[in-house]
Amino acid sequence: MEQTKFLLSEREIPERWYNVVADLPFALNPPLNPETREPVGPEALAPIFPEAIVLQEVSTERYIPIPEEVRGVYALWRPTPLYRARRLERALDTPAHIYYKYEGVSPTGSHKPNTAVPQAYYNREEGVRRLTTETGAGQWGSSLAFACRVMGLECTVYMVRVSYDQKPYRRIMMETYGSEVFPSPTDRTRAGRKVLEEHPDSPGSLGIAISEAVEDAATSEDAKYSLGSVLNHVLLHQTVIGQEAIRQMELSGEYPDVVVGCVGGGSNFGGIALPFVRENLLNGRNTRFVAVEPTACPTLTRGRYTYDFGDTAGTTPLMKMHTLGHTFVPPGIHAGGLRYHGEAPLISALVEHGLIEARAYPQNATFEAGVRFARAEGILPAPEVAHAIKAVIDLAQEAREAGEQKVILFNLCGHGHFDLAAYEQYLAGRLEDYEYPEEEIDRSLAGL
Amino acid sequence: MEQTKFLLSEREIPERWYNVVADLPFALNPPLNPETREPVGPEALAPIFPEAIVLQEVSTERYIPIPEEVRGVYALWRPTPLYRARRLERALDTPAHIYYKYEGVSPTGSHKPNTAVPQAYYNREEGVRRLTTETGAGQWGSSLAFACRVMGLECTVYMVRVSYDQKPYRRIMMETYGSEVFPSPTDRTRAGRKVLEEHPDSPGSLGIAISEAVEDAATSEDAKYSLGSVLNHVLLHQTVIGQEAIRQMELSGEYPDVVVGCVGGGSNFGGIALPFVRENLLNGRNTRFVAVEPTACPTLTRGRYTYDFGDTAGTTPLMKMHTLGHTFVPPGIHAGGLRYHGEAPLISALVEHGLIEARAYPQNATFEAGVRFARAEGILPAPEVAHAIKAVIDLAQEAREAGEQKVILFNLCGHGHFDLAAYEQYLAGRLEDYEYPEEEIDRSLAGL
Repeated sequence: MEQTKFLLSEREIPERWYNVVADLPFALNPPLNPETREPVGPEALAPIFPEAIVLQEVSTERYIPIPEEVRGVYALWRPTPLYRARRLERALDTPAHIYYKYEGVSPTGSHKPNTAVPQAYYNREEGVRRLTTETGAGQWGSSLAFACRVMGLECTVYMVRVSYDQKPYRRIMMETYGSEVFPSPTDRTRAGRKVLEEHPDSPGSLGIAISEAVEDAATSEDAKYSLGSVLNHVLLHQTVIGQEAIRQMELSGEYPDVVVGCVGGGSNFGGIALPFVRENLLNGRNTRFVAVEPTACPTLTRGRYTYDFGDTAGTTPLMKMHTLGHTFVPPGIHAGGLRYHGEAPLISALVEHGLIEARAYPQNATFEAGVRFARAEGILPAPEVAHAIKAVIDLAQEAREAGEQKVILFNLCGHGHFDLAAYEQYLAGRLEDYEYPEEEIDRSLAGL
Repeated sequence: MEQTKFLLSEREIPERWYNVVADLPFALNPPLNPETREPVGPEALAPIFPEAIVLQEVSTERYIPIPEEVRGVYALWRPTPLYRARRLERALDTPAHIYYKYEGVSPTGSHKPNTAVPQAYYNREEGVRRLTTETGAGQWGSSLAFACRVMGLECTVYMVRVSYDQKPYRRIMMETYGSEVFPSPTDRTRAGRKVLEEHPDSPGSLGIAISEAVEDAATSEDAKYSLGSVLNHVLLHQTVIGQEAIRQMELSGEYPDVVVGCVGGGSNFGGIALPFVRENLLNGRNTRFVAVEPTACPTLTRGRYTYDFGDTAGTTPLMKMHTLGHTFVPPGIHAGGLRYHGEAPLISALVEHGLIEARAYPQNATFEAGVRFARAEGILPAPEVAHAIKAVIDLAQEAREAGEQKVILFNLCGHGHFDLAAYEQYLAGRLEDYEYPEEEIDRSLAGL
């Protein structure tokens, strides 16, 4: 039987996270205070994050040990399997070898618990009793709810009201894990009350929910805040994905010519790519990296590399990143995890320095790729992942045309069992594609 | 790190199915023709099943080889992991060691593809072009849709109308795999039209949907019918679960004192239990087997062991089994997979001969167990599995009281990501429990 699955034992769960900052051939631009435009130090993060997380956020150490207790929880689903997509290869009639790392086997069905668990752990170790966060459709919120439960913390989730009302399943999942979930805007915070005074029927937004979660944490004695993407420490935790993938590719006897992932905030892409970036930087490898985003939110392909706020409300330190402007509001595409105006500063810098390339696709093309994948490999991918799959199929077809036997690896960061309504709309031909006129992007960027 | 996960490589996917019929210390009662009450031979099944399946249905061979192509598809998710539930053990403060086999990693999230794939394979090998089946909430239908897709068959699913309307997600999954799905009753079959004439607004039932799927297959040149539980060949295919579990328990260094599973038609329970039954029968083991059902459909605990129809319409051969009467209509509990009036003849016979014991629980107690499990182990179980978990928790607490270090194994046959509305109702205290007065069961059985 041809081998299609490459497994590691739980003893092979990585013992340390990989911090690419240690190996970058350029300096990272520090976050700035928006008023003084002076670099902000770690102390600016102390009111909302525990010390261990702040130190990781600014660390330049190459490796950071993973606490044994965190590895013990990882063992509930890690190491995740690496698959060779032989059926997809045959369906595409391509000489390319396609591999995927499957993160959908986690309890919440995505890669998000990889960082939720250590974040909950470090908070508990420093005496924090409760974590607050925001969530859109609920992928991140359900993962933090799970992590808080296993670490014995309380968890308060501010969920964008329109998702709270229309997509109840992940909310119920958070409640099943024991979290409290509020439709944001709420009357529990000044930020929320201010919005409700002006717009009593506000559907909410991720920006408002962030403001509420941060305010809740900053004004509580025993609570801190937790973020599921963008920041360095989040990408750091996700490097378990790529480290495992390197060992599993060794088992396959091959090495990826291309590594592909979808990008929203950048954490699943960073998770699989950064350990392979290390191999390029330190060990003479020459892998291509392709970050895939929606044309509806073309941060890397059409945004500007500049300082901008991380949140839409403009309250965070300024970060140097690719951005469409913090007031940019992408249309309601189904790949909700890719609707972010900015991009992780680490990923942005690697794109800016030419170590990572970027592509954008409209959503119908990505759903077509997602369905094709499901029909070949069985797993129904989340709409976010379908972006990566579209790029993989294109790369495989390019390989076929060039007669090259490329080895392609991508991160299948979550299943689509909570996204079937989107598949239905695609199958019924009711999905819209978005492509911005140049002036519209310019208008949004003009505010920076 | 304490080991919590026991993995096998894909080379260790079983090479043959185990047929317990070969080793039973008693004769099985044959199916009967309902009119003549004479035993029916395999020829009675030929119009709706391919020859290879019919031969498996009546086989007395101990082992039946698994085709390499089927093993290749199994490799998309098999071998499934075996976990030691250390966090649950600690939460229960029990000396018992609790293990679970996790079938939720399959593309459709349950054990059903274990039989859907070989059924599609044998049909294709015999020139069948299309399979028909019925489905309630869609667990089985989505698995057959997946299997037909990978084997290159068309698939027609008759889905009970009330589920079609109220639970669209699994229908969309079937359509994503490329199947056609009709709300039953339809006007495509005589059986469906007859119902619609009398009840134009009929919500449908599994019995009606079976009649439609069987009629469709029996009246089509190139179509056959496929069933997802109850019959011998279905339980046979599911024995990959128990065979893997035996090897994984060896890796753990322990052997189960008790094997637990939920029972509806009996296929997931048979799948994990029958290979361990073999060990009792042939190799001097003394494992207890506990089959768990809902008090709302207490087939094994309160039904009668007698000949009855397999379908509610009374069109199949009569099978000797535990039954509540084929006209018994269980209330709409959320464990839809356990709402069957009868029980697999194989499981029924083993219960009748004292090799398997049965327990029944009301649904609130099972959801309480399911939430407890999710909060300890992360995985949110399907409501069906929550019945098994309730029994496991009770057994673990009995072990604690007796001071015995029992080893308990159960089959976590599917995740609950499509069942979150049920969890919400439980958390809101809106679930009802059902316990039948003796007369009500008697009334249903009086018709036999």
